Amino acid sequence: MSKKKEIKFGAIIQGVGAHTGLWRHPDLPVDASVSLDFYKRQAQVAEAGKFDLVFIADGLYITEQSLPHFLNRFEPITILSALAAVTRHIGLVGTLSTSYSEPFNAARQFASLDHISAGRAGWNVVTSPLEGSARNFGKEAHPSHSERYRMAEEYIEVVKGLWDSWEDDAFIRNKKTGLFFDKSKLHTLHHKGEFFNVQGPLNIARSKQGQPVIFQAGSSEAGRDLAAKSADAVLTEHENIEQAKAFYRDVKKRVRAYGRSEDDLVIMHGIGVIIGRTEEEAKAKYDEIASLVTIESAIAHLGRFYEHHDFSQYPLDEQFPDLGDLGSNSFKSSTDRIKRIALKENLTLRQVALRTVMPPGEFVGTPEHIADLIQLWKEEGAADGFFIQSVTPRALEEFVELVIPILQERGLYRTEYEEDTLRGNLRLPIPANRFAATAAETRP
Amino acid sequence: MSKKKEIKFGAIIQGVGAHTGLWRHPDLPVDASVSLDFYKRQAQVAEAGKFDLVFIADGLYITEQSLPHFLNRFEPITILSALAAVTRHIGLVGTLSTSYSEPFNAARQFASLDHISAGRAGWNVVTSPLEGSARNFGKEAHPSHSERYRMAEEYIEVVKGLWDSWEDDAFIRNKKTGLFFDKSKLHTLHHKGEFFNVQGPLNIARSKQGQPVIFQAGSSEAGRDLAAKSADAVLTEHENIEQAKAFYRDVKKRVRAYGRSEDDLVIMHGIGVIIGRTEEEAKAKYDEIASLVTIESAIAHLGRFYEHHDFSQYPLDEQFPDLGDLGSNSFKSSTDRIKRIALKENLTLRQVALRTVMPPGEFVGTPEHIADLIQLWKEEGAADGFFIQSVTPRALEEFVELVIPILQERGLYRTEYEEDTLRGNLRLPIPANRFAATAAETRP
Repeated sequence: MSKKKEIKFGAIIQGVGAHTGLWRHPDLPVDASVSLDFYKRQAQVAEAGKFDLVFIADGLYITEQSLPHFLNRFEPITILSALAAVTRHIGLVGTLSTSYSEPFNAARQFASLDHISAGRAGWNVVTSPLEGSARNFGKEAHPSHSERYRMAEEYIEVVKGLWDSWEDDAFIRNKKTGLFFDKSKLHTLHHKGEFFNVQGPLNIARSKQGQPVIFQAGSSEAGRDLAAKSADAVLTEHENIEQAKAFYRDVKKRVRAYGRSEDDLVIMHGIGVIIGRTEEEAKAKYDEIASLVTIESAIAHLGRFYEHHDFSQYPLDEQFPDLGDLGSNSFKSSTDRIKRIALKENLTLRQVALRTVMPPGEFVGTPEHIADLIQLWKEEGAADGFFIQSVTPRALEEFVELVIPILQERGLYRTEYEEDTLRGNLRLPIPANRFAATAAETRP
Repeated sequence: MSKKKEIKFGAIIQGVGAHTGLWRHPDLPVDASVSLDFYKRQAQVAEAGKFDLVFIADGLYITEQSLPHFLNRFEPITILSALAAVTRHIGLVGTLSTSYSEPFNAARQFASLDHISAGRAGWNVVTSPLEGSARNFGKEAHPSHSERYRMAEEYIEVVKGLWDSWEDDAFIRNKKTGLFFDKSKLHTLHHKGEFFNVQGPLNIARSKQGQPVIFQAGSSEAGRDLAAKSADAVLTEHENIEQAKAFYRDVKKRVRAYGRSEDDLVIMHGIGVIIGRTEEEAKAKYDEIASLVTIESAIAHLGRFYEHHDFSQYPLDEQFPDLGDLGSNSFKSSTDRIKRIALKENLTLRQVALRTVMPPGEFVGTPEHIADLIQLWKEEGAADGFFIQSVTPRALEEFVELVIPILQERGLYRTEYEEDTLRGNLRLPIPANRFAATAAETRP
């Protein structure tokens, strides 16, 4: 199978969390969000399905209104490190915010995960959408959207620079002579920037894949640009194939504009799949999980996108309220999209809230229907791969059992792991060490 | 066996790191400091020996002069999380600095490790001795010793407060009614202090052991006080039993002065054991590892305690130089001790450097000799337990194989784990949730 044709898959593991009602499903353990067994099983199912990666999202601020999963869940780096010890091939990607952490600590933890997993780590860079996060970190105010993105760009540069502290052949480790490393291959970053001053060097080497894979999940203008400039992969979500194609074309164009090859950025689309052996069975499953969502929880969840705005003050069955710019400094692309759809389709508050909570209906159906759609999206240039969200308790198992074999039969998907690193499986290049060339020139 | 008599054991896992020459030993893998296999094997050996815990130390600043192990090693929280997935009983304790991290992030990561391990997490609080650390975190200067300890005290209070965000019975999770949690049992910390402002609540619940176990490893006045006030356990090191007893008495007295029970603070003494079937074999092993230490590496390592002072400028075989207060803002208790010994025994620089690198000779000998010493130290009130440092490649295996059975036979040590949490095994109480009583009073 050619590199170009092979579809990439990630599994988002999120305990009881894919929508506000999922925890009520009889088949889902109520403590799934803090159950190692649950996370281990999901990761092992995804690995049996030859997925490229599992993905753990994150957040730094909760209120009484937050989704059940957000209230009590594993922190990404810890659970990914645990999963590293009980998996062998699958990539391990987690979210860490550049607005409320230290680049030296982030660089170390991801590099350490990269060594523990022998080259399977990935970092999903976010800037923390929720305004309230500032209050958990002693900050006067949450930085503005554009400031957060400037910080993120500099932060990524610092982290990548720290990751290159040691050239790949720096460690001599000659027991006879007692020479542990070559001093000319240890590099000190000396970064001084707008937001960060970080000297280095980092106290951990590069891994087998060079550096952890960088994911970016924001779809705003600033997010697209950051992805095109600094990321290896993008996690995005769109309402339909046309919008996904437009996004895909736009971001790949930006990648080229930064002098990079299109293939150096993998674009993956998040989908909530609901699979039935028949279309009716799939629809019945959709209705079942929709029935678990209370309108109160849907309204509360909607508020989260708007700086925890209280939507219960508006009539449910009247037109979606005009909120002006509210939310533009947190979930910018999401609130823009909600506003656009609400206006275009003339939706009520109730309709918007329920739609925001539930996955769009497109990837609901028989295994063939879902395989057809995935093939179509891939071939039409809407995505290089997909993130599977478990919107029903057994969605991932069913996807691996029923959809993956169809894609394999069509020659669109691997039957075995070809490589043993995340970069290898995503067909991403190993980044050159930024210091290596200079060092080579200056060495006698 | 009575609670009082049972000895506690921890294993310090530190890759190639127990002294500057260890990595040159033919039996030690040169990449031990970044080898999951090595850490896993050590943890599993310690667990087979029914140890209470494994311990991972840390540091945030390196130079060309640093010990091989410090240059390229795992970050503690990530490797402990990996070990959580491949062990069942043993406690998992790691160092995290209160000077260069955010309490909200630390609280989450240790709480998450505590859930992943089902109640086996511990946090070793340090204030970062190395001055240079500041430069990796964009700080003008390293805070003074006393300021760092004030920060640490406040930081621990914030973390403990965040850990109590959820009462133990807060999560109702009633699938029928749709009630996920009891709002009256979710608590917001609203901490405003000298160094930190942290609102909360934390987005993770307490574990089976209530809160991770707090370790403290500084032995200065400020360190002792912090331990007595805020810690559950102390890791300390002393030259001989008399000094260890004096320390033990002093700290237990401080514990009582804070209105706590003596048994609420476990004092553990770090020892580098070298075991031979005969005394000669043990001495030969000591000489073998001493021969691996180059004087250059010993001098470089000594400098680390003194803000990376360059000792190569002094004559090796003359009296140890007078350095005034150098080092008093970093490794205060260590530099005080070095100065004291050098003066008292009239040592040369070479002697001081080699002695600082190598373990003291006391715990070198036959299994019976070491068991006798451990029993003596315990019975004389010098320690509640011991941290075993692997100063030879197979020290931990040999200790478990040869010394542990003697202690078990003498009725001084467990033959099976009695409890399934770290607090349980250390006989420490589960801390009450600080918000629970108030909440109970105000609830109807």
